[in-house]
Amino acid sequence: MDNPHTLTIFDALEALRGQKLSARELVEASARQIERLNSKLNAFITVIPPEQALQAQLPEGKSSSSHSLRGIPLAVKDLFDIAGLPTTIGSKFFADHLAEQDGFVIEKLKQAGAILMGKTNTHEIALGITGNNPHYGTARNPWDTSRIPGGSSSGSAIAVATGMALGALGSDTGGSIRIPASLCGVVGFKPTFGRVSLRGVFPLSWNLDHVGPLTRRVKDVALMLQIMAVYDPLDPACVKMLTGDYLGHILDHVKGRKIALGVGEFIETSDPEVLQAVREAARVLESLGCKVQEENISWLREAALANKLMTQSDGAAVHRDRLKEHPELFGDDIRRRLEDGINTPLTEYILARRTQAEIRKRLELFFETYDFLITPTTPIAAPTIEGHDAVEQAARLTRFTAPFNLAGLPALSVPCGFTGEGLPIGLQIISRAWGESKVLNIGHAFEQATEWHKRMPTI
Amino acid sequence: MDNPHTLTIFDALEALRGQKLSARELVEASARQIERLNSKLNAFITVIPPEQALQAQLPEGKSSSSHSLRGIPLAVKDLFDIAGLPTTIGSKFFADHLAEQDGFVIEKLKQAGAILMGKTNTHEIALGITGNNPHYGTARNPWDTSRIPGGSSSGSAIAVATGMALGALGSDTGGSIRIPASLCGVVGFKPTFGRVSLRGVFPLSWNLDHVGPLTRRVKDVALMLQIMAVYDPLDPACVKMLTGDYLGHILDHVKGRKIALGVGEFIETSDPEVLQAVREAARVLESLGCKVQEENISWLREAALANKLMTQSDGAAVHRDRLKEHPELFGDDIRRRLEDGINTPLTEYILARRTQAEIRKRLELFFETYDFLITPTTPIAAPTIEGHDAVEQAARLTRFTAPFNLAGLPALSVPCGFTGEGLPIGLQIISRAWGESKVLNIGHAFEQATEWHKRMPTI
Repeated sequence: MDNPHTLTIFDALEALRGQKLSARELVEASARQIERLNSKLNAFITVIPPEQALQAQLPEGKSSSSHSLRGIPLAVKDLFDIAGLPTTIGSKFFADHLAEQDGFVIEKLKQAGAILMGKTNTHEIALGITGNNPHYGTARNPWDTSRIPGGSSSGSAIAVATGMALGALGSDTGGSIRIPASLCGVVGFKPTFGRVSLRGVFPLSWNLDHVGPLTRRVKDVALMLQIMAVYDPLDPACVKMLTGDYLGHILDHVKGRKIALGVGEFIETSDPEVLQAVREAARVLESLGCKVQEENISWLREAALANKLMTQSDGAAVHRDRLKEHPELFGDDIRRRLEDGINTPLTEYILARRTQAEIRKRLELFFETYDFLITPTTPIAAPTIEGHDAVEQAARLTRFTAPFNLAGLPALSVPCGFTGEGLPIGLQIISRAWGESKVLNIGHAFEQATEWHKRMPTI
Repeated sequence: MDNPHTLTIFDALEALRGQKLSARELVEASARQIERLNSKLNAFITVIPPEQALQAQLPEGKSSSSHSLRGIPLAVKDLFDIAGLPTTIGSKFFADHLAEQDGFVIEKLKQAGAILMGKTNTHEIALGITGNNPHYGTARNPWDTSRIPGGSSSGSAIAVATGMALGALGSDTGGSIRIPASLCGVVGFKPTFGRVSLRGVFPLSWNLDHVGPLTRRVKDVALMLQIMAVYDPLDPACVKMLTGDYLGHILDHVKGRKIALGVGEFIETSDPEVLQAVREAARVLESLGCKVQEENISWLREAALANKLMTQSDGAAVHRDRLKEHPELFGDDIRRRLEDGINTPLTEYILARRTQAEIRKRLELFFETYDFLITPTTPIAAPTIEGHDAVEQAARLTRFTAPFNLAGLPALSVPCGFTGEGLPIGLQIISRAWGESKVLNIGHAFEQATEWHKRMPTI
């Protein structure tokens, strides 16, 4: 089989089961992509050699899930603990920090037979969206290497876009899964807060962190989530819920679904090409029988600001000792943001927490009227690496994603077009709490009705 | 009928329905208690004259609830808005602040036919537990007027203990319903966070405030809650839940219920008479068929401290402008606590929020093993007014109650004994989130098996 690294997870599983492909062939194909491209793109901080990756695969029968990822090469953001490997969190402080045991989600994926290819590059301590990491190299967009891949789960998005892995794990505190997915032309999903265990994932904000998958198809996200989203009583944030039937609803009819298309000044300062692609996506959804109505969502601006304030302050609380003792070991943008975070007046922080409760309620009522809200994932396609300030970029690129960290709602980014320069554009689809199945269902329906997801970068 | 003000709400409703008593007679009896005792006990900040109270009663047919409080005199903590009356929150700043409309809970109680007797005294801005209010007079314990009644819902507990009202509304951020209930020998209940709307109740902490009833019987709490606990989409904190069937389960059998009796150094520094009464209560519950097991709960100390830190800081955020512009208008203890609150390092506050999440999870797991936890409501019976510092008293008296504000769990205080000096002792019964029906069920069973609730202060 040619180029097995370009397969979706579902197609690869079928080829593996039909013995048209072996796990070794698949892993070696992905490993070749890593070898060929990693020095250029800086996707991985730690690469697991293919032989070692294959040997680490658990035997069958370890999983309590009926779903399998047996033989599928996955990439893991370097915030997740994998026993015996360093977890750097993209920081100089943790360069030599070896993880003693697997994080909860890693354990689940391993039990399902996944093969881990390595630890991916991240914006330092996951606080930023460029992926321009001063310690582990500048992550680059595979569609145009002069541009950012988005972040903070930069390497995970690059890996999936280029077939270095067929799926990846990311974390998302203000958009860190969805933004690189959007900018690299792959699918990224942030589940409901409390749906997936955060145990063994280095925190940025105990209140806003989420973990989720990046893949090349919505259905692959559903499969990974099916395996990852198991209740973990040892994670304080994890909510006791039955695992949803994400795959079981992926083919449901979407006719009659009510969709709000976000409009208003908050949205309309986006790049016209991005707006055009999202309007086009709305028409596609209408053609599938959905009812689309415009809604001014400029009130979400306040949510984005509250999320930013809280992320910085929560991050400063997590990194308080390092910031105090060795501020010089942080990159410039990170030190600035953590210092802003720690100098935030307590009252402002408490008011942001109140805003969080208000926005949650407002969105709860919003989703009594609508099944979904759609927006661009980011207001612009991937900007250049040079010539921009990382902190300003973060504020700009997280404005549509961050409100749904604040509210803890499930949000998906799917490819919905390309700019004239050939850069991917992402559509964000949001729904009510615990509405993962519905989001993945409509995302899949959209994907099936379009061709955007089929393109891969030629690099 | 003699002394109708000593009736329970249920007995009064029966007498009213059987025409053995008129609402006017009942209201006038309570009004006589107010007239006779208020100058001594300082229970009310604003008294509604009986004629006006009777006239304000809504006609029948206004309520969507099938449950009635028609003709029942109630007292309302002066934090709740009643249209046309001042809401002072026990503060000099709000002495002339007229409420424009009824708070959500007030509206529900009025619709059910309740008669509002006035606004009760509170520890200033609800931040404290003595009830020693420098602006509206020192609230006094009706069992011994040299002692504190507890607070901050001081006047509500005094009113119920003395028949100035048959039931009352309180608010509870660290124990402010349960502590005065315990010290005044009445029943007080704090429901699950999000169960009862906070709209139209002046906030102290958006994260820890709860409202609930005080009465002379557990069954009366169930009736008031039945009417109050309606989902309010306009309160950001209110959770969309069906109103429970609190009265429907009040007579359930309690045999086989698993009860943890809190022990450990955290508990055992309490007054020996208090500990003895709670051990005796545990034996009563055993005699009803419950299984009681001792559990060291010293880990809740951290929860009490986190609740204290957060209450002060959240209160400082709410009162930030007043604290900045006119600190001298606050009482000494309040100014000290708000200043401590505003000077708390942001990182400590964020870590307290993390503690909150951890304690919630730990208690969630705890209540997978046990149906209930029982503790003393307060480690001591009512201390004297003189000779104690208000801030230290708050830390001391809230230690067993505050953890359940942090965790948002339902917690009841019921009378369980008297000290040698004739001061009431309260038993606290806590259960899992949304377990109101079970808490009220076992509280009722305990009450029926004992006589403590039958004593009223002779004053």
